[in-house]
Amino acid sequence: MIIAAERAKRPQDFPPIENTQMTEEGRQTCPFCYGREDRTPPEIRAYRSDQSAPNTPGWTVRVVPNKYPALQIEGDIDRQGDGVYDRMNGIGAHEVIIETPDHDATPATMPPAQLETVAQAFIDRMVDLEKDVRFKYIQIFKNVGEAAGASLEHPHCQLIATPVVPKRVTEELESALTYFKYKERCVFCDIIRQESREATRVVFADDLFITFVPFAPRFPFETVIMPRRHLATFKNMAPEEVKAFAAHLNLLVGNMNRALQTPPYNFVLHTAPCGQDVLDHYHWHLEIIPKLSMVAGFEWGTGFYINPTLPEQTAADLRNGGV
Amino acid sequence: MIIAAERAKRPQDFPPIENTQMTEEGRQTCPFCYGREDRTPPEIRAYRSDQSAPNTPGWTVRVVPNKYPALQIEGDIDRQGDGVYDRMNGIGAHEVIIETPDHDATPATMPPAQLETVAQAFIDRMVDLEKDVRFKYIQIFKNVGEAAGASLEHPHCQLIATPVVPKRVTEELESALTYFKYKERCVFCDIIRQESREATRVVFADDLFITFVPFAPRFPFETVIMPRRHLATFKNMAPEEVKAFAAHLNLLVGNMNRALQTPPYNFVLHTAPCGQDVLDHYHWHLEIIPKLSMVAGFEWGTGFYINPTLPEQTAADLRNGGV
Repeated sequence: MIIAAERAKRPQDFPPIENTQMTEEGRQTCPFCYGREDRTPPEIRAYRSDQSAPNTPGWTVRVVPNKYPALQIEGDIDRQGDGVYDRMNGIGAHEVIIETPDHDATPATMPPAQLETVAQAFIDRMVDLEKDVRFKYIQIFKNVGEAAGASLEHPHCQLIATPVVPKRVTEELESALTYFKYKERCVFCDIIRQESREATRVVFADDLFITFVPFAPRFPFETVIMPRRHLATFKNMAPEEVKAFAAHLNLLVGNMNRALQTPPYNFVLHTAPCGQDVLDHYHWHLEIIPKLSMVAGFEWGTGFYINPTLPEQTAADLRNGGV
Repeated sequence: MIIAAERAKRPQDFPPIENTQMTEEGRQTCPFCYGREDRTPPEIRAYRSDQSAPNTPGWTVRVVPNKYPALQIEGDIDRQGDGVYDRMNGIGAHEVIIETPDHDATPATMPPAQLETVAQAFIDRMVDLEKDVRFKYIQIFKNVGEAAGASLEHPHCQLIATPVVPKRVTEELESALTYFKYKERCVFCDIIRQESREATRVVFADDLFITFVPFAPRFPFETVIMPRRHLATFKNMAPEEVKAFAAHLNLLVGNMNRALQTPPYNFVLHTAPCGQDVLDHYHWHLEIIPKLSMVAGFEWGTGFYINPTLPEQTAADLRNGGV
């Protein structure tokens, strides 16, 4: 990416983006709130501390099929050529992880235990879906706010299991493998060592996780949460790592929301493909990108991004929560 | 990409996007209008049919340096390592091609001769900038409307010359080369043959150009303009091809504006890198993408795009101008 430092921007240079979803009507009809469990397809899994029945209130985290799935769970992939083109059926799973019954919560306001259950739901769904050999990759992501692609405001993540390893995942894996072949070290482990040593781009760090602004962030206030332990897949975290991950996410979203006045954002989990639990060259991480700028013609054409913020300044702004 | 056909959308399903730039104040202070030539850096080139002096009114197309460049023209690239990372100075050119003195014109309303001069300006700037050996690629693009990243409404394109071949360009070149090695044919020539034969995705075609909706469009109403003649670089078009290109762009933007109520959009020119004028495997083309949907977490993570439109229907809608 290109850092255009002479027009360096600070948090206050990004005006707050109005979220038109925060309406009383949205709340009155929200299909993810208690008592409206029949407005979603029947639940795949729910976390309940009481003895409440499926598809009734009482859950703390609830996983349901997406009502308007991008991919269909039934059928065969049926790859075929069509002249120069290839096509296959859109087979896959598209699920929604409802993070809390609280319509107004955010990862910054949820109690840590709630976020840990959300992370546990990610793990449980990954373990379950990887049993289906048709699936090659499980992508977990979160869209918050209309500008970031969310259509409902109630806190939720999405999961899409795809019948091929996505292009961007393949690219990341290949780059990491090239580095590994040359150095015999994981590039992400090397990044952790360098970021810890230089410290200027670190937002929070403890014994288990490091949250930092990348050396070359594509977008203003792009941030990464990464486990210190070399681990290819999210689902193989130890319980204390799940706890630490939840704590980092909670802190980061809190400080980002304060610094940028609750911006729309996306997060995307980068984890190893199905069945590739042990990879010396790959290391899972979570990427968080507030939606502060538009992707325009130059970015589409080149894959280069022009970023008017300095990563070291962004890290300081996020450490201080914009104060 | 993923076509989610069961929720197929038509033009009327995309509500018009308000363009807040269309203000009287914007017009009163527009730096690209006649008489305000001193509000841009001095012109690099201007097309004038009268004998008017540089940096005064009378021009038909005017090329100026971007006042807020993403890259700086002066200096050395100075590549260097920094631990696991690489950095280089942001050397490059960033220019603005002001397409017309008419503040309210669009490529759909400009006379064809005006658009031909714009295309000629692209060619002239490419020829001139390629003399600078520091530049490896010249990216020409257009952002229209705030949602597509434009900050001024007066019709203009931008040009960025970069000291490396951008990632996405390299990927496209590599894919095309792989196909060529296997088939000994240009993949784009094969696409032209297949699209012409099937005809269902063609918007307009004549002897020199074909405008079509890709087999797998990532975005609703994504469209491509491609010369029939195998030609790696835009700048080597024959004069009659420049004319035909201008006519296709004029027709396409007109029908897109009618079908989608003047949407924000980007176009991006895909052309060969500097100094690679003759490539058997590459074929220049222009990609046009109206900004109708948000890129969200799934798209960022995977590079897959969920498109709720059918390409054959889109082609019909664009042929008919949304009628």
